[in-house]
Amino acid sequence: MSENKRTPESTLAITTEIVLPNDTNTLGNLMGGKLLHWMDVIAAISSHRLCKRVCVTASVNNVTFPKPIKLGDIVTLRSKVSRTFNSSMEIFIDVFVEDRSTAEQLKVNEAIYTFVAVDQIGNTIRVPEIVPETKEEKARFEGALRRKQLSLILAGKMKPSDATELKALFED
Amino acid sequence: MSENKRTPESTLAITTEIVLPNDTNTLGNLMGGKLLHWMDVIAAISSHRLCKRVCVTASVNNVTFPKPIKLGDIVTLRSKVSRTFNSSMEIFIDVFVEDRSTAEQLKVNEAIYTFVAVDQIGNTIRVPEIVPETKEEKARFEGALRRKQLSLILAGKMKPSDATELKALFED
Amino acid sequence: MSENKRTPESTLAITTEIVLPNDTNTLGNLMGGKLLHWMDVIAAISSHRLCKRVCVTASVNNVTFPKPIKLGDIVTLRSKVSRTFNSSMEIFIDVFVEDRSTAEQLKVNEAIYTFVAVDQIGNTIRVPEIVPETKEEKARFEGALRRKQLSLILAGKMKPSDATELKALFED
Amino acid sequence: MSENKRTPESTLAITTEIVLPNDTNTLGNLMGGKLLHWMDVIAAISSHRLCKRVCVTASVNNVTFPKPIKLGDIVTLRSKVSRTFNSSMEIFIDVFVEDRSTAEQLKVNEAIYTFVAVDQIGNTIRVPEIVPETKEEKARFEGALRRKQLSLILAGKMKPSDATELKALFED
Amino acid sequence: MSENKRTPESTLAITTEIVLPNDTNTLGNLMGGKLLHWMDVIAAISSHRLCKRVCVTASVNNVTFPKPIKLGDIVTLRSKVSRTFNSSMEIFIDVFVEDRSTAEQLKVNEAIYTFVAVDQIGNTIRVPEIVPETKEEKARFEGALRRKQLSLILAGKMKPSDATELKALFED
Amino acid sequence: MSENKRTPESTLAITTEIVLPNDTNTLGNLMGGKLLHWMDVIAAISSHRLCKRVCVTASVNNVTFPKPIKLGDIVTLRSKVSRTFNSSMEIFIDVFVEDRSTAEQLKVNEAIYTFVAVDQIGNTIRVPEIVPETKEEKARFEGALRRKQLSLILAGKMKPSDATELKALFED
Repeated sequence: MSENKRTPESTLAITTEIVLPNDTNTLGNLMGGKLLHWMDVIAAISSHRLCKRVCVTASVNNVTFPKPIKLGDIVTLRSKVSRTFNSSMEIFIDVFVEDRSTAEQLKVNEAIYTFVAVDQIGNTIRVPEIVPETKEEKARFEGALRRKQLSLILAGKMKPSDATELKALFED
Repeated sequence: MSENKRTPESTLAITTEIVLPNDTNTLGNLMGGKLLHWMDVIAAISSHRLCKRVCVTASVNNVTFPKPIKLGDIVTLRSKVSRTFNSSMEIFIDVFVEDRSTAEQLKVNEAIYTFVAVDQIGNTIRVPEIVPETKEEKARFEGALRRKQLSLILAGKMKPSDATELKALFED
Repeated sequence: MSENKRTPESTLAITTEIVLPNDTNTLGNLMGGKLLHWMDVIAAISSHRLCKRVCVTASVNNVTFPKPIKLGDIVTLRSKVSRTFNSSMEIFIDVFVEDRSTAEQLKVNEAIYTFVAVDQIGNTIRVPEIVPETKEEKARFEGALRRKQLSLILAGKMKPSDATELKALFED
Repeated sequence: MSENKRTPESTLAITTEIVLPNDTNTLGNLMGGKLLHWMDVIAAISSHRLCKRVCVTASVNNVTFPKPIKLGDIVTLRSKVSRTFNSSMEIFIDVFVEDRSTAEQLKVNEAIYTFVAVDQIGNTIRVPEIVPETKEEKARFEGALRRKQLSLILAGKMKPSDATELKALFED
Repeated sequence: MSENKRTPESTLAITTEIVLPNDTNTLGNLMGGKLLHWMDVIAAISSHRLCKRVCVTASVNNVTFPKPIKLGDIVTLRSKVSRTFNSSMEIFIDVFVEDRSTAEQLKVNEAIYTFVAVDQIGNTIRVPEIVPETKEEKARFEGALRRKQLSLILAGKMKPSDATELKALFED
Repeated sequence: MSENKRTPESTLAITTEIVLPNDTNTLGNLMGGKLLHWMDVIAAISSHRLCKRVCVTASVNNVTFPKPIKLGDIVTLRSKVSRTFNSSMEIFIDVFVEDRSTAEQLKVNEAIYTFVAVDQIGNTIRVPEIVPETKEEKARFEGALRRKQLSLILAGKMKPSDATELKALFED
């Protein structure tokens, strides 16, 4: 691998939080907004590990909250850059909650954020390429292109007919 | 309009925040995660105003951060329920920053969240219907169906060929 | 109305908060100090909307807390400049709590703060005049003069015999 | 002194805070709302020391902010119950800032809050009497009656003509 | 290894924090107290991973702060249980700061905390044994006994003459 | 006493906190890390009162947490510089909790921190001498030398055989 290429693993960032009373809604469950905040911070760290520059949130892709996380739960977030484009990066964040009696890590959530690296006056700069290694990393790397096309279409910056990767999905 | 129907306007929730030092990154700009958190709280209030029940985040749709918000900026978030389905609601949040010399509200951002209403043990419950009135409310109401289909496809819960609304987009 | 005159309505600022665990005392009610803090922030925004300058708290007039606000309550604060003097402004803040089953806004509290506009080195600067329109705005505008006299007397900066507006109150 | 009587000194509560970035406005000065919050907490502690019951804010009397407190300043608040009525107490809070080169305590502010003691369901309960000792304590004890009359008049609960203590002020 | 024995590695907990403005002193460096707080939380998580019970801080051993950590630095804490006694555990926390231009992890600090596992009414309970594997884990395991003796002597609960491990240190 | 000498009493700093929900663990008791943070802040203020310079944490000596502090408890911390060396100071912090029915201050904890005074670029500077007055101040002053020797040995900066004060302890 050339010197300028990095693996997703080299961008792995981990953080662990305990759900405190102020993080919860009136049902005693973690508020979605708090988890979105934690995800954003750890994704910023993964992208910094790749670029060694300040990285800022460009967009949040579809994030789902399938089951509640409780007050007092130990929550671990693991994030990795999954693919880079010219000046942007896609970051995957996996969220785990620890079973209280076995300490086993149960996956409860995954999310995708896009970041850009910026210089001191806020202009975007080119980011290094990433080369996936594991099966999961490769699948996420492949999917990133479809997600980028979708996001460009939704923003009105690409014609659906030009989104070849995505279009194939609807021709089945 | 029947008694059980409500307008998006009746769910309008407004909040105003001043960007404090701890809300900013090392460039002195509002961190994306903080804004995501504020959006989630105000969206929860709009959905509560519709349902009068605890409402929790089900998903976050594509949110973009086109330009930085600065330390000390006054940020106003306005949210409204844009469409309801059986047990879920789509909420639109518009974000404005106040020009410092004219106090004019400049729109910087919009976001779409999905919430569900839950009972005391966390089961989802049926939500009241919403009837759009203004042109913008109607456009958002229409778009909500395409966004829901897209989200079901991405989650593997709908076949692309069944997403008639969305499919049309790719046939142009 | 001349270009330099503004209405109280043009200074309206709204914020909505959910009462979180850390905002409450051991009875589970919102602490007075937290509400005073929220009031101060929203009053600063109203005064900024009038002056387009940094505005700082000059004084807090009598604020009463007639009934408790509960954990999880949705609290809305609405503030408007009620009258301006040479370099100071009086701001009225109305506080509402949302009924949980009807989402109706119930007024629980009102407060009066005085702010001054300052330049970058902290010197007070002249503030634009305000012209009340509604009946309530006019009543608050009138009352502001009596409150200012009272405050000057309490600070030892005016002789009671010179407070003509206020004196009349005691001659009934 | 009978067993049920206490001195203001026995209710003295002290707290010391360092002004952190999030406590300041865009001029780098302590926000009024933060100081109001700190005052409320320390006043609650003084009133608890007198009553040994949960005490809640009933009202805030005139508080002025004559000069700015800076980022990084060490701020000391000293509070004492100044007088008790049937079920309410007046608390005086003196605020000091430490000179950075001499560590001398400079008084910058004083404030008056009223608290009530409540039982577990929130009903007000009788509070013990206080007996002032020093000259300053006696002056504050005397003034408390005038302030209470003023507050009752402003709330429309007393006719100005019945406020004998206060009325005298305007007859000079 | 028997079923009740665990390795230090199985208790590894990692967290990553960005130093925010409110975490710093007036020189712009991370305050010691904030780092002590972060260390305590991650140590609680390591001890929970060993015991699957609530674990509370029993004591903090000597922690040193050899060099400042700056505003905006990315700080990673890694903690592991180093030895267990009947009802207490020693936890080692290693602190790393990320070089901004290389993203290399530089160790800046290490700390030792002691935790106990407690049941729901707060009584201490027996903790599982730990078996060190790596060279560093073994050295820390050995040192833990000397540190425990030292702590018992300082607390007046052991006579120096009975601290055989520690005494040897002074006989060289 | 010469002009450059100060008493421990002149460095006394006091703070009072109410234990809020976010300060507690899942048993409803104050987390150790939060108390360590409060201790660090008040110790920084005591050392500032002695030196009139920014003072930063150099180390934390053995701190024990013998009994839990509950949600809603009023916690008072009192700190004093106990001894100074060339460029460092030892600070003692005593922690008290208020009995809820008698308001009596019960001592629950004591801790020892070491601080250094630094100039604007972070270099340590000489600190003024301290002269103990009370019996307790004298005992703490004497003990400080033994604790410093112990800390130097643990850091590998002093040979145990040179720690004459400490060695005597093991020869009994």
